[in-house]
Amino acid sequence: MTARLHGDAVTLRPDSLVVEEPMEIRLDDHLVTSTMRTPGHDYELAVGFCLTEGLLAGAPVRTVRYCATGPASETFYNVVSVSTGGLAPVPEARLHATSSSCGLCGTASLDAIRQRLDPLSGPPPAIDLASLVRAAGATRAQQRLFEETGAIHAASDFDPATGEVRLVREDIGRHNAVDKVIGRLLLDGRLPASGRGLFVSGRASFEIVQKAWAAGFGLVAAVSGPSALAVDTARAAGMALVGFLRGSGANVYAPAPGLSAAAARVDAAEPGVRH
Amino acid sequence: MTARLHGDAVTLRPDSLVVEEPMEIRLDDHLVTSTMRTPGHDYELAVGFCLTEGLLAGAPVRTVRYCATGPASETFYNVVSVSTGGLAPVPEARLHATSSSCGLCGTASLDAIRQRLDPLSGPPPAIDLASLVRAAGATRAQQRLFEETGAIHAASDFDPATGEVRLVREDIGRHNAVDKVIGRLLLDGRLPASGRGLFVSGRASFEIVQKAWAAGFGLVAAVSGPSALAVDTARAAGMALVGFLRGSGANVYAPAPGLSAAAARVDAAEPGVRH
Repeated sequence: MTARLHGDAVTLRPDSLVVEEPMEIRLDDHLVTSTMRTPGHDYELAVGFCLTEGLLAGAPVRTVRYCATGPASETFYNVVSVSTGGLAPVPEARLHATSSSCGLCGTASLDAIRQRLDPLSGPPPAIDLASLVRAAGATRAQQRLFEETGAIHAASDFDPATGEVRLVREDIGRHNAVDKVIGRLLLDGRLPASGRGLFVSGRASFEIVQKAWAAGFGLVAAVSGPSALAVDTARAAGMALVGFLRGSGANVYAPAPGLSAAAARVDAAEPGVRH
Repeated sequence: MTARLHGDAVTLRPDSLVVEEPMEIRLDDHLVTSTMRTPGHDYELAVGFCLTEGLLAGAPVRTVRYCATGPASETFYNVVSVSTGGLAPVPEARLHATSSSCGLCGTASLDAIRQRLDPLSGPPPAIDLASLVRAAGATRAQQRLFEETGAIHAASDFDPATGEVRLVREDIGRHNAVDKVIGRLLLDGRLPASGRGLFVSGRASFEIVQKAWAAGFGLVAAVSGPSALAVDTARAAGMALVGFLRGSGANVYAPAPGLSAAAARVDAAEPGVRH
């Protein structure tokens, strides 16, 4: 039971909680990660993760299955194995991928994905505020788990010209919701998502923009703000980036508005904020 | 520059963006993780992470320093080394810590921290709504980066009896903000945080409750909702757990309100929500 407190009133009601369970992802029988996720659309999550983290390296996905080496216990559904028949390179454990140098920084992170991913082909989709607002509303309307629990993230694939939403996925982790959307598109043969928009219910971090780039999205629209590195990454990709998409307004960070003014930007001395 | 769109109006203004940079954490010269974080309070983050992930295992922190093996380049401040003089056990890379079994599940995750951590001593602090609301307001008032960027998480250490806030830390990652608070308390010799409250600006996930437990907090209060596993974990710890602390109301999930009714709880068949 949950007790709702408001002023002096206490109301008891049944719990309605987002489920969070660990899931291991394996690629060609190599462990690649373990993530806390909301169960459901697990195959999409596994496939999407392998793609957006660059682990497939162009190899096709042949099969996706729950780990069948143990008994069909409650843990059976928490291990998903993606197979390319050995065509994908042997994955390094994620941690090790960033451990080869003592020095690392945002610029190096951006350089690393620049080496892996080409800039998006063609110009980013035009930014139409009414369509973005429509896409945010349509995504929210399809968030079944949010309706019940009030505490879950969503990502969706939408048409930037009309705001029409094609696909919504939810997860306790924002990046997982994005991987589920991208995994579905990959399994449906709909990648790269050229000219499409990716909506995310929270902030636009470097990781989210990187995933959108890997899937070929032309635009990312987020309910909260982007990080400085996310903006740099979107600009490097040739991707449109919109933040603070709330109510009837939004901010556009990329394509860079007022390029000449941006060139005069001065980095602030205080840590944590870049002006 | 950022372009603010509202209706037909477009306003250009300077970017004010949260900084996000990778940081490596080393313990006694072993790499333990690489995380995207907002620079600032890096030593606290490194120390807090080592404590809350159980890597110190009771060993004292002797020194904390930026990695001094390379030139003082821009990456110098993105590697932090924590030393216990070799008293802490050799850390396993985080990924590998969860890879030993093919099967894993939330119950196993909870069992693992139960083995590592004793239940909190003494009863959890009494839940006083007015004090919780006061703590949330005081935290928000001290969020300097949120004020500037609108897109950053916060955690704080507060007194559940009065709502007085002792310490506020901000980061693009919720778990990093929590680690910064806990790291500061450790460096100040103020752990365990018995009878104290930990405020977090987002959801209360398993990971957040686990970190609070490791630091000995008696209460966690979150602006958004907890996961089912977070509620189970708080109850196992003997910790008070409050969610949806917004405006003048809040939900109490632990200590379990209406225990006899909770015992009759039925898990819903649909994935993603537990009723």
